[in-house]
Amino acid sequence: MSHLINNLPLIIQDAAAVESLAGAIKDDMGMLWMLLSGILVFFMQAGFTLVESGMTRSKNAVNIAMKNLLDIAVGSLTYWFVGYSLMYGDTSNGWFFWSGIMQGEGADLFFQTMFAATAATIVSGAIAGRTKYSTYVIFSIVMTAIIYPIAGGWQWQGSGWLTELGFIDFAGSSIVHAVGGFAALVAAYLVGPRIGKYVDGKVMPIPGHNQILATLGVFILWLGWFGFNGGSQLAWGGDDAVAASTVVLITNLAAAAGALGALITTWIWYGKPHLAQSLNGALAGLVSITAGCGNMSAGGAVLAGLIGGIIVVFSIEFIEKKLKIDDAIGAASVHGVVGFWGTIVIGLWGIDGDSPIGLFNGGGSAQLVSQLTGGLAYAVWAVVLSFIVFGILKKTVGLRVTEEEEVAGLDISEHGSIAYPGKRERGQD
Amino acid sequence: MSHLINNLPLIIQDAAAVESLAGAIKDDMGMLWMLLSGILVFFMQAGFTLVESGMTRSKNAVNIAMKNLLDIAVGSLTYWFVGYSLMYGDTSNGWFFWSGIMQGEGADLFFQTMFAATAATIVSGAIAGRTKYSTYVIFSIVMTAIIYPIAGGWQWQGSGWLTELGFIDFAGSSIVHAVGGFAALVAAYLVGPRIGKYVDGKVMPIPGHNQILATLGVFILWLGWFGFNGGSQLAWGGDDAVAASTVVLITNLAAAAGALGALITTWIWYGKPHLAQSLNGALAGLVSITAGCGNMSAGGAVLAGLIGGIIVVFSIEFIEKKLKIDDAIGAASVHGVVGFWGTIVIGLWGIDGDSPIGLFNGGGSAQLVSQLTGGLAYAVWAVVLSFIVFGILKKTVGLRVTEEEEVAGLDISEHGSIAYPGKRERGQD
Amino acid sequence: MSHLINNLPLIIQDAAAVESLAGAIKDDMGMLWMLLSGILVFFMQAGFTLVESGMTRSKNAVNIAMKNLLDIAVGSLTYWFVGYSLMYGDTSNGWFFWSGIMQGEGADLFFQTMFAATAATIVSGAIAGRTKYSTYVIFSIVMTAIIYPIAGGWQWQGSGWLTELGFIDFAGSSIVHAVGGFAALVAAYLVGPRIGKYVDGKVMPIPGHNQILATLGVFILWLGWFGFNGGSQLAWGGDDAVAASTVVLITNLAAAAGALGALITTWIWYGKPHLAQSLNGALAGLVSITAGCGNMSAGGAVLAGLIGGIIVVFSIEFIEKKLKIDDAIGAASVHGVVGFWGTIVIGLWGIDGDSPIGLFNGGGSAQLVSQLTGGLAYAVWAVVLSFIVFGILKKTVGLRVTEEEEVAGLDISEHGSIAYPGKRERGQD
Repeated sequence: MSHLINNLPLIIQDAAAVESLAGAIKDDMGMLWMLLSGILVFFMQAGFTLVESGMTRSKNAVNIAMKNLLDIAVGSLTYWFVGYSLMYGDTSNGWFFWSGIMQGEGADLFFQTMFAATAATIVSGAIAGRTKYSTYVIFSIVMTAIIYPIAGGWQWQGSGWLTELGFIDFAGSSIVHAVGGFAALVAAYLVGPRIGKYVDGKVMPIPGHNQILATLGVFILWLGWFGFNGGSQLAWGGDDAVAASTVVLITNLAAAAGALGALITTWIWYGKPHLAQSLNGALAGLVSITAGCGNMSAGGAVLAGLIGGIIVVFSIEFIEKKLKIDDAIGAASVHGVVGFWGTIVIGLWGIDGDSPIGLFNGGGSAQLVSQLTGGLAYAVWAVVLSFIVFGILKKTVGLRVTEEEEVAGLDISEHGSIAYPGKRERGQD
Repeated sequence: MSHLINNLPLIIQDAAAVESLAGAIKDDMGMLWMLLSGILVFFMQAGFTLVESGMTRSKNAVNIAMKNLLDIAVGSLTYWFVGYSLMYGDTSNGWFFWSGIMQGEGADLFFQTMFAATAATIVSGAIAGRTKYSTYVIFSIVMTAIIYPIAGGWQWQGSGWLTELGFIDFAGSSIVHAVGGFAALVAAYLVGPRIGKYVDGKVMPIPGHNQILATLGVFILWLGWFGFNGGSQLAWGGDDAVAASTVVLITNLAAAAGALGALITTWIWYGKPHLAQSLNGALAGLVSITAGCGNMSAGGAVLAGLIGGIIVVFSIEFIEKKLKIDDAIGAASVHGVVGFWGTIVIGLWGIDGDSPIGLFNGGGSAQLVSQLTGGLAYAVWAVVLSFIVFGILKKTVGLRVTEEEEVAGLDISEHGSIAYPGKRERGQD
Repeated sequence: MSHLINNLPLIIQDAAAVESLAGAIKDDMGMLWMLLSGILVFFMQAGFTLVESGMTRSKNAVNIAMKNLLDIAVGSLTYWFVGYSLMYGDTSNGWFFWSGIMQGEGADLFFQTMFAATAATIVSGAIAGRTKYSTYVIFSIVMTAIIYPIAGGWQWQGSGWLTELGFIDFAGSSIVHAVGGFAALVAAYLVGPRIGKYVDGKVMPIPGHNQILATLGVFILWLGWFGFNGGSQLAWGGDDAVAASTVVLITNLAAAAGALGALITTWIWYGKPHLAQSLNGALAGLVSITAGCGNMSAGGAVLAGLIGGIIVVFSIEFIEKKLKIDDAIGAASVHGVVGFWGTIVIGLWGIDGDSPIGLFNGGGSAQLVSQLTGGLAYAVWAVVLSFIVFGILKKTVGLRVTEEEEVAGLDISEHGSIAYPGKRERGQD
């Protein structure tokens, strides 16, 4: 480009013109980055589908796919129609929205839509294998239209009460993941365990059916998370470009540390490095850094992720064996418990990211209080709202399929087809 | 961006210099967006492979993979060698091309190449399970080198006869999808149904072998479509950035509505929400908005996608049960019939996208006539050319494998290996 | 960016201010392109996982997933901690690094990290099915922290001895792929063949278990390679935008030609076009152009890829049947042998890429000598270092699992779980 410049016969007398051009270009680049980030976050739906179906039984895989397809379909429409307005307070067109496009906010609406769909989809895995599809449809609508947008507005609307409190949640450890994760915990509790999970007081393993698809799913989620966290910079150019790049870098470091944290934990505890837990560890590393990726040093990110990867192993065991809540894929631990961890770690060693070596260079009690307040607020909100919604659903349409339907598998009973035809009906292949 | 520049309060002795810089940067950003979009569209080949193999039997999965690998391999070479030149009329180097690179059109040639490969690959699924590989090789060459480029030039060359007519097809509902879809219909008709599809006048289901791979494939296609439609803006920066972002947003809305349209239709019709049809519905939603994504309001996009998702369910049933044409994965319906729908809907409520609520704010009879003319022209072109090409192939090399080969599966007979070794030959896993 | 603007002298009398703005924007765009490219390269880890697990037996699939997960986890940490510094000589913080972020090099560090992880992961497939996990952990650390960074510095550090020699390796045919590939060859040799591979002097086929996952893996690798090669331009804007676009375009052409080269070779040799070899052909095409994608005409790229796709078929057969080294997925051929080919082809018809038709418009004996020198240096380095590292590991922790563990499968013996639970333990699905 410099060769172009060298040929310019310029004498500019008004620097404002150049500044205006620079601002317009920065806006253009920011829009490109947000749109691409939104596209990456969209792909996370595929990742969730694979993780959830791979980690559960094949007789419920079609149902998982239908729930994830529903989340993005319903979430895209409800969030556009009402959620975005509710969250960001843009009610210029009335109480519902559909105005983002008119105002040239296409890239932002698209990006935010994908977050709403993610919050909903976290729940689907936890309650796999026994929940009515019609019930899930209603929950998905309420989650993307009301539960998530209202909670999101507390912080991301710009002048919400948590923002005023100094709460930090850069990309949504609490706002997206903990809200989804604690809703998943309540849902799994209310819907009850799968038949055969707890027999005579003993906890029985119900292994997933395809760990390679689950692995692919985690890689896709990891990939999408670069957009999830990096895009939350909401801009590109100058300091924003450096900041967003750093966000992506430390997001990757935290994921790596989380995978190793779980891998090492299981190697010590189980005697062998365990795949499913290591995959959960990678996701836990990602959730651990989602709130703090804009306020954490690289060293701090590694430590946050490492601890997140250790926490998730113990949390999954605790919820399954002590609380006796049957969370089919560990979603409450990965997104809820670790989401809370990712929120409060900012109060421990976040804030001042200038020194990439020092861990304990920030945080402090004031920030920790803000983080605890916000983290608890989101957890309570998710728990209370989920109790209300699933409670009403339990009394009305019901939460569970019948015992016969559950044993046969939801694919047959709820959708009339199976994931892998040919194994049973056909002889030749 | 140039409108911004024009409004600057500048006293520049040569304002053209700043404008020149702004233009150069806009070109750079446009090239980046097109290249990234082309990369997304490339990935659609993986999506097609998964959808097609997942929705057909495992004994033909290697053959499906080989056809999709061939489409991108052959398409990349033929479109570079001759197709691009034929389509855009750049014959400065003779009748064949290979000049795009010299002229700095790398990103554009790359982007357009992926469209040619897509047009070819639509056909492969419809004729799965009984077609000779050698025959398909020849068709793939002719499709990417001749059939698609000539038809594409009618509109996208810039001064083709359909452009003159006022025809609108922003990203190729007709040019790519209907051409591919109607070619698929003719091919499926000429090659005849799979053994066991129609027995004693009854239509027998031949279920696919892996609905999770099919679901992943649809998510990948949905992802790639953001590049397919968004990249068709062919530029980034200023109004183009806003427009391309809006294209991506309403593409997502139409896909969401299409998935719901099919999901609800099957819930009512079949009694249960059906995965394979809902997946086809998502694709139908995408095809429905491919022509109009630059000229449609968000509300119009939702309605177009919703109707597309309903159409595709009925179309698949109609072609399978009434026309008795064995389109193995519904490609003729998804891409052909719905491609035609996506083309004409612009004449119903497209054009004026300023009001995001109003549906019937545009269209009009003049535009509808243009859309019908163009839509029919592409359908007729695809049908006639496919009849000629597959007709010649039928008389010469033949279209079908032998009955023994078909029963054994194309993987063994055409490629000498099977998709999932171990199930049969090996005992231990 | 606004801080830049705020610091601008408000009355500009010199075009240098505009030039400065143009430079800042170019830096922003370059950072965006590198970050996105790094994200694409990250996704290659998923591709490797699928190719390696799909092409080997299901009883070792969990182990493959664990090795690939480890490579990105370990590689991200070691390369950040020490590798980047060792490679680029930035030792301002001492002998170890963690300074990239402080210096605003987040996008570059992220991009380069993915290359280190790739070099490590190439090895994992070759030694699948019999190697101890603990041994692999140590190798992965050494590879990403020491072996790859030192070798990479010879050329990419900017003033290394190979740079001085005029050696060209744009994106790493030698630096990444041949180093990984020859390490894989040595590892496969030292660890010895899988039980049942060579019986009574006969070579027995051990087919993979899922060719569709392998196909998806190759598409993902192909996708990621656009970032691998295109991002190696390390910049965007003006000439760099055109150059990077051209790199992506000819990368695709070489991959297409490589797939066809292997497809045709097997069609002639085996009598049928063979999927696994065609997939290896596509990868070989990509490796063939990785060194020369910045210095090759499109025609030259096609020929380089085509020959690479032919070479890989013969090389795999040669290593398996003549050398009797059991490289489980052909990694030594795809990345090592073809990596060497991609390095030296620049000396045959690279350098002057201005004429897209002419093949033999460059190269020459001086360049060929440089390419041979560099190519041999990387091969020797990889072979020697791998002999040392795996040799020490063989004497200490040991390379192989026991015979019983190998027969049972590494998934059970090393990780305590299997990839596809349900097939054996559960009756009902």
